[in-house]
Amino acid sequence: MPSAKSAPRNGQAHVDEELYELTEDGRLPSDNSKVPRKYHDGSSIDWLHEEAVERERIHALRSQAGARGLLLPLLESSRMWFVVIMAGVGIGITGAWLDVLVKWLGDLREGRCSYGFFYNQVACCSGIDPGDKCLDWLTWSETFNIQSLFGQSLLQCFIYVLLAIVFAGSAALLVESYAPYAFHTGIPEIKAILGGYVFDSFLSPWTLLIKGVGLALAVASGLSLGKEGPLVHVACCMAFGLSRFFKQFHHNEAQKRKLLAAAAAAGVSVAFGSPLGGVLFGLEELDTFASETDVMWRAFVASAIAAVSLQWVNPFGTAKLVLFQVNNAIDVWRAFELIPWLGLGVGVLGSVLIKMNVEVALYRRNSYLSNWPVLEVVCVSAITAAISYLVVFSRQANGTSIANLFQECDPTKPDYHGLCNPTAMWENVFLLILTAIIKIGLTAWTFGMMIPAGIFLPTIAIGACLGRAVGLLTQGLYRAYPKAWIFLSCPPDPSERCISPGFYAVLGASAMLGGVTRMTISLVVIVFELTGALSHVLPIMICVMTSKWVGDAMGKDGIYSVWIAMRHYPWLPPVDYRDKGETGANIMKSLDRLVVIKDETLSAKELQALLQKYTYNGFPIVRQTQLVGFVTRDKIRDALETVSAEDYSDRMKKCSFSTRDSLLPETSRIDLSGYLEEAVLQLRKEVPQELVVNMFQKLNLRRILFTHAGELTGMTTKTDIVSLLMSHFPHTAALSQQPMYSMWQRAS
Amino acid sequence: MPSAKSAPRNGQAHVDEELYELTEDGRLPSDNSKVPRKYHDGSSIDWLHEEAVERERIHALRSQAGARGLLLPLLESSRMWFVVIMAGVGIGITGAWLDVLVKWLGDLREGRCSYGFFYNQVACCSGIDPGDKCLDWLTWSETFNIQSLFGQSLLQCFIYVLLAIVFAGSAALLVESYAPYAFHTGIPEIKAILGGYVFDSFLSPWTLLIKGVGLALAVASGLSLGKEGPLVHVACCMAFGLSRFFKQFHHNEAQKRKLLAAAAAAGVSVAFGSPLGGVLFGLEELDTFASETDVMWRAFVASAIAAVSLQWVNPFGTAKLVLFQVNNAIDVWRAFELIPWLGLGVGVLGSVLIKMNVEVALYRRNSYLSNWPVLEVVCVSAITAAISYLVVFSRQANGTSIANLFQECDPTKPDYHGLCNPTAMWENVFLLILTAIIKIGLTAWTFGMMIPAGIFLPTIAIGACLGRAVGLLTQGLYRAYPKAWIFLSCPPDPSERCISPGFYAVLGASAMLGGVTRMTISLVVIVFELTGALSHVLPIMICVMTSKWVGDAMGKDGIYSVWIAMRHYPWLPPVDYRDKGETGANIMKSLDRLVVIKDETLSAKELQALLQKYTYNGFPIVRQTQLVGFVTRDKIRDALETVSAEDYSDRMKKCSFSTRDSLLPETSRIDLSGYLEEAVLQLRKEVPQELVVNMFQKLNLRRILFTHAGELTGMTTKTDIVSLLMSHFPHTAALSQQPMYSMWQRAS
Repeated sequence: MPSAKSAPRNGQAHVDEELYELTEDGRLPSDNSKVPRKYHDGSSIDWLHEEAVERERIHALRSQAGARGLLLPLLESSRMWFVVIMAGVGIGITGAWLDVLVKWLGDLREGRCSYGFFYNQVACCSGIDPGDKCLDWLTWSETFNIQSLFGQSLLQCFIYVLLAIVFAGSAALLVESYAPYAFHTGIPEIKAILGGYVFDSFLSPWTLLIKGVGLALAVASGLSLGKEGPLVHVACCMAFGLSRFFKQFHHNEAQKRKLLAAAAAAGVSVAFGSPLGGVLFGLEELDTFASETDVMWRAFVASAIAAVSLQWVNPFGTAKLVLFQVNNAIDVWRAFELIPWLGLGVGVLGSVLIKMNVEVALYRRNSYLSNWPVLEVVCVSAITAAISYLVVFSRQANGTSIANLFQECDPTKPDYHGLCNPTAMWENVFLLILTAIIKIGLTAWTFGMMIPAGIFLPTIAIGACLGRAVGLLTQGLYRAYPKAWIFLSCPPDPSERCISPGFYAVLGASAMLGGVTRMTISLVVIVFELTGALSHVLPIMICVMTSKWVGDAMGKDGIYSVWIAMRHYPWLPPVDYRDKGETGANIMKSLDRLVVIKDETLSAKELQALLQKYTYNGFPIVRQTQLVGFVTRDKIRDALETVSAEDYSDRMKKCSFSTRDSLLPETSRIDLSGYLEEAVLQLRKEVPQELVVNMFQKLNLRRILFTHAGELTGMTTKTDIVSLLMSHFPHTAALSQQPMYSMWQRAS
Repeated sequence: MPSAKSAPRNGQAHVDEELYELTEDGRLPSDNSKVPRKYHDGSSIDWLHEEAVERERIHALRSQAGARGLLLPLLESSRMWFVVIMAGVGIGITGAWLDVLVKWLGDLREGRCSYGFFYNQVACCSGIDPGDKCLDWLTWSETFNIQSLFGQSLLQCFIYVLLAIVFAGSAALLVESYAPYAFHTGIPEIKAILGGYVFDSFLSPWTLLIKGVGLALAVASGLSLGKEGPLVHVACCMAFGLSRFFKQFHHNEAQKRKLLAAAAAAGVSVAFGSPLGGVLFGLEELDTFASETDVMWRAFVASAIAAVSLQWVNPFGTAKLVLFQVNNAIDVWRAFELIPWLGLGVGVLGSVLIKMNVEVALYRRNSYLSNWPVLEVVCVSAITAAISYLVVFSRQANGTSIANLFQECDPTKPDYHGLCNPTAMWENVFLLILTAIIKIGLTAWTFGMMIPAGIFLPTIAIGACLGRAVGLLTQGLYRAYPKAWIFLSCPPDPSERCISPGFYAVLGASAMLGGVTRMTISLVVIVFELTGALSHVLPIMICVMTSKWVGDAMGKDGIYSVWIAMRHYPWLPPVDYRDKGETGANIMKSLDRLVVIKDETLSAKELQALLQKYTYNGFPIVRQTQLVGFVTRDKIRDALETVSAEDYSDRMKKCSFSTRDSLLPETSRIDLSGYLEEAVLQLRKEVPQELVVNMFQKLNLRRILFTHAGELTGMTTKTDIVSLLMSHFPHTAALSQQPMYSMWQRAS
């Protein structure tokens, strides 16, 4: 079954907490099975509880007698650092080898190495003196010894498209058959997981393998996608796998998440060769470090280690982390350039791309397409390959074309497709804009297909095309009117360069990324770690600033938030929520809509029956109307297992969760007081709704009980808050419902 | 009175919240005066309340009829951006002109411009062809036409030292006489203010002026101090001054703080020419943006705008933001270099500097020195100037010598004091280490004198000396044994460079900064925005990593936290607090130690008497033992003003803060229910202490009430939490007590 369908079906329009608790097949987990882990996929972890468990554990370690009390915590801490460092090293090496794989597969589309099938073009020709023609690398037409020029072109084109289809198709097949969760970017899911959502199958070793291989195939197929987001997913899978060997992570969901956050940062670090950008991405986009300074610190270490490992493997022998080195740009920029730059920033294409992507996703879900995911991938890859072969600026892999677009013209270097030819300006501008438009369409369609796909690189490519076009136009204007007052600040000699169109491409890419992801500071850091354009940080900041302002005016959510909303994960966006004067009363489920357990009124059998009847994740315990505490479903289940058969069948013996102030004699009650959570968070329902939302966001709560003078008045769960914060988005939960393919089924 | 004494005297060993509430002279604010602002210096703001007020205001604006309801919020928002942008521009321009002033004053110590007194050396000689000698700039010995070489040296040295004393002395006099809060770096206070501490006189226009001028004088005097921290203070003063013109900031302390956070980022941005570093400094060190994403966004804008303004004014005509450009360093680094680098990182000098600085501060406070702050400054500046004139590497201004130490050797450029001379290696290493040791001593003494002083630049200078020394030693080793196995990875020809000692200086500076400030990611960003060494980000990260690890092992607090603790500001460090199994009960003041108001038992007169008797900032209201709510001192005062004279004197009429479930007939009660805060945060005392601390840290609370089944059991205030988190530091509040100069007074 394709992943788009088999993701947890947790989203009806109004979702209650208990719905997150359903197992995959919709049944409740059976009560008698001993569940090895406390949470099942689809639930949300209880941070407070996890932290409490961790505290207990550390406390137990420290209170050991003598040297053990000193050594054990030290061992714990070094184990933690060991895992962080190992994860960093693993991710760095994996990233490097994925690069190698992609390069080889990509080159395979054009030819093969005569003396070894598994060499890529650069490795194959590595022994050649510069300037000599490489004879060891044979294009396919050379391999098949085709003489006619037309035949050569036809064969090359045919193999180019065919291999694209084969790569993309096999990636899709792998994903569909073995690891449905390996499709898409993975970042929305990682965000949800780091926020407390439990989704272990998303991080399984199988997913790791398929996502890695599928990613290499997908990137090599030339589809309009990048490897950045999926690499974050791969990194998290690796860390998750590692964590299984260490009890301190395996048995504590909160600790596991802190490790995953560090791994995610390392993933970005490897994807962009940007160790600082990785940390900041975790900080800003994954929003995990705000709560814990030590998480940021671990991410910092993991990120640095991963980048060192990547550099150490050094897949292409350049030993450089900077992917798209910008050089030869003019160091000084002039005030008039702010006009084209702001123009780039104001571009609303980021929002358009998001909107198109949403529409495509909805269409895919609600049409025949949902039954033919692999066919869809094959068709799109065929179309992409055909178009790419025709339109010059998109024939090369995204990475190469971006690097070329970022490059300034330099008479000593070969010209990239005549970009530096001043007489061909209008053709170039037309081609660049055409490429950008085509890429927007392809990207909007590709991002969401049954294939691992990141959105970063295509977005950069689109932005770079547009930016270069604007740069060429500005340059053309300057060449036409070098004496105009607006160009007065340029050097008087028009043969000197005044405008650097390559840098405009960088700005276009930044602005486009800003519009799509709505990141700010991490985006700027990533861009200049990518390009090395440190001295140009200010224009980049200005562009990101404007693009975010304009984008936010068209819709507050970045592409990842939109996907989270569509898949309806229980994730609290870190937005600055402002109520309009509502209080907690507005968002709480009031007492009459809650199922509460009246203490010392239920026999064990009745308690069991209640557990069977209601699927809620937990129940408030009251005595008369006074709140006594809260007990989770799991705790009740555990408690009932300890009840003796005799007590169980005695209808007169009542379950007592709090023995304090008990009204019953000891003989007629079953003492379950050990299972009560007394330390529940209580608020008055008069508190501003804003504060309630704030507490959920900052304290990672799962529920808040409302009381007045000790009496329970209502309850709010994380799910309520998620629904509240997502209420402005029209397509919430659109992808978590069943696809509407009944039409087709009737027809067939 | 020197500032060290006149800072709010809020720190006895056990401080209660009410002590923060005292006015400067120790009396309670008089009850009948209409206070124009709600908080007085020394109190902590109530974030929840401020946010509630802001919410009300925005709501009122939005609910205006018709176009006003749309336009007014827009106007509000544009006003906010106007202030942010104006603050950014102002800070950028101020920073630029401070640079100019410092340069001129600094050059004045060596000579003057013959055709205009107010030109600095570079400006004076600007018309000269390169290579020609500048005749317009006259050294003092030239001005006074002294012929003998000895006389020349003597006069130069004399004027050099004399002007240092004059500059430093006048800065100290200015600070002592007009703005005692303008001394020191200001960052500890800014941290406290951003955390909610009210300290308006710290941000007055007078402080702004004196700090700006005093800073220029202090830097020009050649004392071992930097301008970075004070610039943050100046930036905050400017934003504070601007905020007074806008009601939305002036009347809301929370909004004001968000603006100050943006200004602080802009201050760092200007100080280092590092717009990203500014934002990250705010994020990591000031810890303000974690709570609010829009604060980070504003800081980003302010920071960028400030850097643009600085670049636009372009004080030195270089149009570059990068202060200490590193170039000519070798791009590739080798694995064996990790050994010296880790050695730099492991250096414990950061912690030593902090410890020495604390000891000096304690000694200064508890000795005669506390009476002679200006004399102390004069003496230290004389000593500093004399030593600097003797020891070659410290004669130049900190900035220049750092730039030279970061520079690689380049045969085409002039050699800086023979650093590149391979035969003088041992002398150089000796001199560098000597300089570092002297600088550590001077810096530890200077940081805390009655003069504006930042710690960043001297720390960089110390680290750069040490790093360069290590670099020279490594290089020497390589030159001596080029064939050793450890150097196998170097190019086979020993005349080629393998080791870049300049880059070692950068690493030393990073490690030293890491040890002193304990910053991580923001430090790395600042360092490479300072040096432009983007391709070397990994070694920098590694050095910062090790230095933080080692430093944390020797004491968790950075220098700013230490100063906050010594001055005992109510600031909650964002540490990851772990309890040892304690619960809230451990940290709360229990009911019998609280002053509570029993509802409907006090007449107005009795209430007034209670207000006179107890200085607490607020009182819980109970009925029997049930908690009804909380009321602050200010609210009671307001409430009592509305009571009619008749009611006031009627002893039978009781004050009623909650009319619900009232037991009294309406005629015999005074309805004060409008003044009650019902929405107080309540917890059970069984919650883990960790959670209590966490809530204070993340929700910016001022107090938490503990209840059980509606009954009040205790209360915890921010002050309790501050004391708890600072309890490990031995000198807490050491500087907020009265200085012990009684000894001296007896003697005289």
